[in-house]
Amino acid sequence: MQTILESKTKTVIIGDDVPFVMIGEKINPSGRKKLGAEMAEGNFERVRNDAIQQVASGAHMLDVNAGYPMGDEPAMLVQAIQTVQSVVDVPLCIDSSVFEALEAALAVYQGKPLVNSVTGEDERLELILPLIKKYNCAVIGMANDETGISMDPEYRLMIAKKIVERAADYGIAKENIVIDPLALTVAADPAAITVTLETIKLIRQELGVNFTCGAGNTSFGLPNRAPLTAAYLNMAMYCGLTSAITDAMNETIRMGVMAGDVMLGHDAYAVNWIADFRQKKAAASNQ
Amino acid sequence: MQTILESKTKTVIIGDDVPFVMIGEKINPSGRKKLGAEMAEGNFERVRNDAIQQVASGAHMLDVNAGYPMGDEPAMLVQAIQTVQSVVDVPLCIDSSVFEALEAALAVYQGKPLVNSVTGEDERLELILPLIKKYNCAVIGMANDETGISMDPEYRLMIAKKIVERAADYGIAKENIVIDPLALTVAADPAAITVTLETIKLIRQELGVNFTCGAGNTSFGLPNRAPLTAAYLNMAMYCGLTSAITDAMNETIRMGVMAGDVMLGHDAYAVNWIADFRQKKAAASNQ
Repeated sequence: MQTILESKTKTVIIGDDVPFVMIGEKINPSGRKKLGAEMAEGNFERVRNDAIQQVASGAHMLDVNAGYPMGDEPAMLVQAIQTVQSVVDVPLCIDSSVFEALEAALAVYQGKPLVNSVTGEDERLELILPLIKKYNCAVIGMANDETGISMDPEYRLMIAKKIVERAADYGIAKENIVIDPLALTVAADPAAITVTLETIKLIRQELGVNFTCGAGNTSFGLPNRAPLTAAYLNMAMYCGLTSAITDAMNETIRMGVMAGDVMLGHDAYAVNWIADFRQKKAAASNQ
Repeated sequence: MQTILESKTKTVIIGDDVPFVMIGEKINPSGRKKLGAEMAEGNFERVRNDAIQQVASGAHMLDVNAGYPMGDEPAMLVQAIQTVQSVVDVPLCIDSSVFEALEAALAVYQGKPLVNSVTGEDERLELILPLIKKYNCAVIGMANDETGISMDPEYRLMIAKKIVERAADYGIAKENIVIDPLALTVAADPAAITVTLETIKLIRQELGVNFTCGAGNTSFGLPNRAPLTAAYLNMAMYCGLTSAITDAMNETIRMGVMAGDVMLGHDAYAVNWIADFRQKKAAASNQ
């Protein structure tokens, strides 16, 4: 199955036989107070730079979040989206829990974005899905609902099914639903990741949809996080994860993901791997 | 299932709910002409140093191979084993395709080694298995036979079954058979690794045995090999690989494996991961 996202002129495909899609996570004020404060003041210089740097490092898409306490989120999200689309030409993931912010951002976005996100809660589905249909875009469906996050993969599958079915009722095709299987923090629960991996396998088998997830959660609270996140991503890629919102500027994570593509035959004969190696070598010798 | 290996005083357990066992690959003249020439001349200084360094870097076991054209392999292997056992106290993997070399090495080895290896060929099984029984050790069973290496996971499973059954006929317990599912070079065949991963899953499900494999093959011929090997190992660990003969001195590979243990809950609450981080930090601050 292929999920197609678009910027003004570029198309990115999330799918199970193509290279993994890395969605840069940096443009998000949570945990980055300074960024949020600047955005609230109308200063989008850091947003601009983060966009340029993430794409230069190899991010295929960018997540854009403007959630900040006391900030005017719809206005901030619109300005962030416009700023990012003025400097880089990759599809974006419009990230907000505020309906008005999503609505305003979708109205100005140029192309076909990925909306982040809807859950399995009836209220959220009824609110968000009509918007997805209206703008003919794709949406991340998170495998939790009003009961919280289940540690039972079968329950997460049930929620994913509900999201896909409810979307169909609104005329939204399955390829425009990208399921987030939920990756929790392994430092808090040694079974966190095996539950996520089992969830991906189950949902892939039953629904055949594409996936994304916030990969950084997995290594939260631990030292030397990048190899941990990369290990998670490699296992998840094998199970069927087809994209992730992650630190695309981290070389360990990026090489881990690219190596995973080689091992799974999604970068056949390591064409991308070798090109990347040569490019870095050339860049190093030009310095 | 637990496979128990022993040196003079130390025990290593290969198993599916304990940390992954890294078997250092360095003491092997193939591809290391100088090492082979020195060993043939009776100079085991490099063997000694390689043993010390690999264990210092975190190898849980060491592979010892003395195959060298025109060399007296039984004598060289005996001396290599004795040299290694005199400087490090980890269980060894005695690696030879020459019966007389295995026999001579087993006679001097102190503890319970892993013998590398037997295949599914009748002739090899009849030759090697009585030796395994006599010395009450464990053996690597490679999933190939006189027909070569099959790209059908079901065929590799059939060979693994044959090895386990034939071993049982000789009174060798299943936990003393460590299956090598065979990891070929992905640069030569984009399906090489997915076949290996499927093989591990199948054999694990049907036989429940432990596994090992030469991990470096997977990335052979490609630049920047360590992240590729680490990606393979993470996927294979998820499928059930419980040990590997690999470059335990490579930090990317070693951190990848340790990260895989954390993600699978085999290093619960990241106790080993955090201890390793602190140890490196302390070592760095002492420099």
